[in-house]
Amino acid sequence: MASLLGRLCLPHVPGVGWARCAPGGPCLSQARLCSAGAFVQSVPPQEEADSKVSAQKKTFSELQVERSEQAQRTVLINCPANINEKAFLKYLSHHGKINDHYFYESLGTYAVVEFSEKESIASLQDVTRTPYVEKECTIPFKSRIFTLSLKNPVTQGADRPSVHYHKQSTILCKDLLQKLCRADNVSNQLYTLMDECQLTEENTKLRFLACSLIQDIARAYFPDSTVQPFGSSVNSFGKLGCDLDMLLDLGEIGRSPIRTNTGPFYVEYQMKKVPLERTATQRILSVIGDCIDNFGPGAMGVQKILNARCPLVKFSHQPTGFQCDLTVSNRAAIRCSELLYIYGSLDSRVRALVFSIRCWARVHGITSSIPGSWITNFSLTMMALFFLQKRTPPIIPTLDQLKALADAEDKHIINGNDCTFASNLKKIKPTENTETLHVLLNDFFEYFGNFAFNKNSINIRKGKEQNKPDSSPLYIHNPFEQGLNISKNVNQIQVERFVALARECSWILQKKDKSQSSLCNKKPWGLAALLQPSIAKSSLKNKKQLALASERMQSLLDSLKINSAKRE
Amino acid sequence: MASLLGRLCLPHVPGVGWARCAPGGPCLSQARLCSAGAFVQSVPPQEEADSKVSAQKKTFSELQVERSEQAQRTVLINCPANINEKAFLKYLSHHGKINDHYFYESLGTYAVVEFSEKESIASLQDVTRTPYVEKECTIPFKSRIFTLSLKNPVTQGADRPSVHYHKQSTILCKDLLQKLCRADNVSNQLYTLMDECQLTEENTKLRFLACSLIQDIARAYFPDSTVQPFGSSVNSFGKLGCDLDMLLDLGEIGRSPIRTNTGPFYVEYQMKKVPLERTATQRILSVIGDCIDNFGPGAMGVQKILNARCPLVKFSHQPTGFQCDLTVSNRAAIRCSELLYIYGSLDSRVRALVFSIRCWARVHGITSSIPGSWITNFSLTMMALFFLQKRTPPIIPTLDQLKALADAEDKHIINGNDCTFASNLKKIKPTENTETLHVLLNDFFEYFGNFAFNKNSINIRKGKEQNKPDSSPLYIHNPFEQGLNISKNVNQIQVERFVALARECSWILQKKDKSQSSLCNKKPWGLAALLQPSIAKSSLKNKKQLALASERMQSLLDSLKINSAKRE
Repeated sequence: MASLLGRLCLPHVPGVGWARCAPGGPCLSQARLCSAGAFVQSVPPQEEADSKVSAQKKTFSELQVERSEQAQRTVLINCPANINEKAFLKYLSHHGKINDHYFYESLGTYAVVEFSEKESIASLQDVTRTPYVEKECTIPFKSRIFTLSLKNPVTQGADRPSVHYHKQSTILCKDLLQKLCRADNVSNQLYTLMDECQLTEENTKLRFLACSLIQDIARAYFPDSTVQPFGSSVNSFGKLGCDLDMLLDLGEIGRSPIRTNTGPFYVEYQMKKVPLERTATQRILSVIGDCIDNFGPGAMGVQKILNARCPLVKFSHQPTGFQCDLTVSNRAAIRCSELLYIYGSLDSRVRALVFSIRCWARVHGITSSIPGSWITNFSLTMMALFFLQKRTPPIIPTLDQLKALADAEDKHIINGNDCTFASNLKKIKPTENTETLHVLLNDFFEYFGNFAFNKNSINIRKGKEQNKPDSSPLYIHNPFEQGLNISKNVNQIQVERFVALARECSWILQKKDKSQSSLCNKKPWGLAALLQPSIAKSSLKNKKQLALASERMQSLLDSLKINSAKRE
Repeated sequence: MASLLGRLCLPHVPGVGWARCAPGGPCLSQARLCSAGAFVQSVPPQEEADSKVSAQKKTFSELQVERSEQAQRTVLINCPANINEKAFLKYLSHHGKINDHYFYESLGTYAVVEFSEKESIASLQDVTRTPYVEKECTIPFKSRIFTLSLKNPVTQGADRPSVHYHKQSTILCKDLLQKLCRADNVSNQLYTLMDECQLTEENTKLRFLACSLIQDIARAYFPDSTVQPFGSSVNSFGKLGCDLDMLLDLGEIGRSPIRTNTGPFYVEYQMKKVPLERTATQRILSVIGDCIDNFGPGAMGVQKILNARCPLVKFSHQPTGFQCDLTVSNRAAIRCSELLYIYGSLDSRVRALVFSIRCWARVHGITSSIPGSWITNFSLTMMALFFLQKRTPPIIPTLDQLKALADAEDKHIINGNDCTFASNLKKIKPTENTETLHVLLNDFFEYFGNFAFNKNSINIRKGKEQNKPDSSPLYIHNPFEQGLNISKNVNQIQVERFVALARECSWILQKKDKSQSSLCNKKPWGLAALLQPSIAKSSLKNKKQLALASERMQSLLDSLKINSAKRE
């Protein structure tokens, strides 16, 4: 419990760099947790106090702007594996002050270098050559992705220890299980899982850089456009290796321009006109997709899916290793990312619980990377948030409560839907609930193991069960479009599997007593036990027993009906 | 004759603005002619002497650079037809000094405005709005094409006389014939035709502007690229309304970069690689074609013809009214444009003769806008140049003579072909030949009416007939690739038609005596007579007579052979 209270929770806030507080230390009163371990190294101790304050003040959009600006001052450099880090930094600092840098591996060694000034990039570009390959031809598009090579590979690279690589993917499953078994208690197992799976500061920076590189391509024709990450990359629930959702905002499409008031004339640009915003979106995405495909270094497997409800371009960005989805102007999606970010930032138990439940669901095939009738990560997150709203006292507020806290500037009506909620974290009172994650995880399984999915819907706006508006097996209200079910795709079989597994896991958590959770126990315990694939089998057995029982019940009812009919 | 000698010939050289010299005036010794009537208005008298000198010094490439630079400072503005020119200029001069402007009509009233500084465009763009159209959507690509509207159309535009429009197309055929009939003599008829058909200074500027607008699109991704006009737009033989051939030069494709020598590393851009320069060309043209199609205001009917020998993108540029062909890196084509420019600049009789012959060929269906077995304008021009090389004394030098005059910097070897010739006009001694255009036109028809097309080829490099390397009905050596026949497409029927018409026209010119060439004569005379469609019919009749005669000759020969065979 002590270590649970001893953390502050602010996922990936730049400049936030304090370590976990000592158990029972001065943070005790705050009941919030921090797990961004990667930060600890990058911020010098003397800056901690200040950045803690300023980071806490920052809203989601301030953070987005700050990170985007940072990304525009950043370059990506493919280096020899045996690079001398010191010489490398010395060489680059001829072009300007370096704020930050790190190395990672992705089809070679890459360095992310953040300059202090944008001008440094132009200076570097001035000395950069177009590659010349015998019998091949290059498309001379000049981006911020460079290849650095040694003038004298033999002497320069001799016996050099390789640089430290920052991880860009999650730990192997068996290693994770081992780590979990070494934890003190179930609650810390959940934190350990989150620490291993969540996006690192470096990976988040890389995501903003990838967006910024695509933004360069879009800005060639639309200088007012921006490309920003949304979804799991920024909503604080993303795990390492998750897809990178990019949003292209053209800034001006369909918006009424300001009339300037000089002289007797109006001047307008002559522009192509199309009958629908959708057509404009499709055309622009199509051309930008072609530019990415034909010019963008390292962009592979570009697929244009322009006739989808939300037209998109998919591609794999090899230098950063991200699978990217580029869409146009979807402001509601950005608001949704912000809402999750707020929930994730209010109390660290939120993210720890959601990470663990998602991991558990993935192991047992409740969620899937293939579209289909499976429950999605987004639906699971909504279920977890709903569960946390229903605790006594609640751990997080309902969306309606967040809306009540909103300022005038928080007001957002998008396509007629009210997307208003408070953006300022300071306005939201911390919870007084002190339940452990062990309790919460167990109760989550118990709650949904017994949830009346057949008649009730889940709605984080209200924070209470409602009657289902239709007969969908699983009904979760879209937080901003209340009439939409975000889990319309889910079929009855999947709901039943989820319920059976939840019951099985609740049973396992309660069954295993404290004695089993000691270190060096050979059998996996706690969360690790729940992540064993064998559970699915036993839950299925239980399900079969349930099915048999319900069959028997049905025949009983039928016979009763027959008997009563005979009597009439 | 006097008026023939009284002109100086420098087609469309910026800053050249003197009117025709008086007959027998001070220009008499120069035996060259000027017809750029449009210039006279735009250059103030005191600048004439200087610009005459500087313009004469300018080479083709200096001119291209100067005009391209001019075009980059120029904007295109769609105005209300009843615009007040003074108010318009006053309004625009808020953004900077205006060097030049003019109006023309093309689906509305357009103004071409050349600022003195490039920055003025940015200033104008600052006050320019994105158009907002109810129920339509615009592609927010910001170009240098604007729409200007009156804030108060009723009071501002009331009873205003419309501005002066510069012509962008040739005179109607019947009007041309009338004008020709009003000329003093046949020679002046040829000059009149050239004056009416040739590109004006304004139209040439508009062509460079159209290229510059496409260059903006290309430079978005390839900042070192240029888009330049080539072919008839700049070779001094273009007529109003001719297609605009554009050449995209990416600057770097396939060229070895310079190695910069700083520190222990090399830095290169990471770039897409393709196996062939052709593939690179196709990809780049394809994407730029899509950009023009989807973003470029006023670009219509974009067609990508990427599998042609020389991949190209065709489109119609509505604001300028040009039909454009965009190709990539064809340096030989640029050299060819320069060669024609030099020939056209050496002696005004060259252009006057070529314009008249082309017009004559078009009227009689010898050339056609549809590809096929017709003789092309380029072939006709080569024939005329060849004819002028064969006069005594020659009016223009052979290509080998021009090569002999070349400097080290004139040396151009393109794909193994020698494209070397002197670029500096001052090095080429003016001709001493003083024949009139009347004589030249007549002799042209006579010469080619009797040319041994069956055994001889035409080669402007040598300036003399050669044995045909193959049996093509018409063989004209490509000036730079001597082994290629530029008229390979032409079939025997077309050559026969050309010969028959040439003979008929030579006969008409000789038959009509001076008395017929008086003013107010009802029957067309001289060149006008040659442009009557009825000639084709009578030439055909002559051809029939010829055919009959040759048939008779053949039977005679056959009978002789039979007789001799009998004797053996």
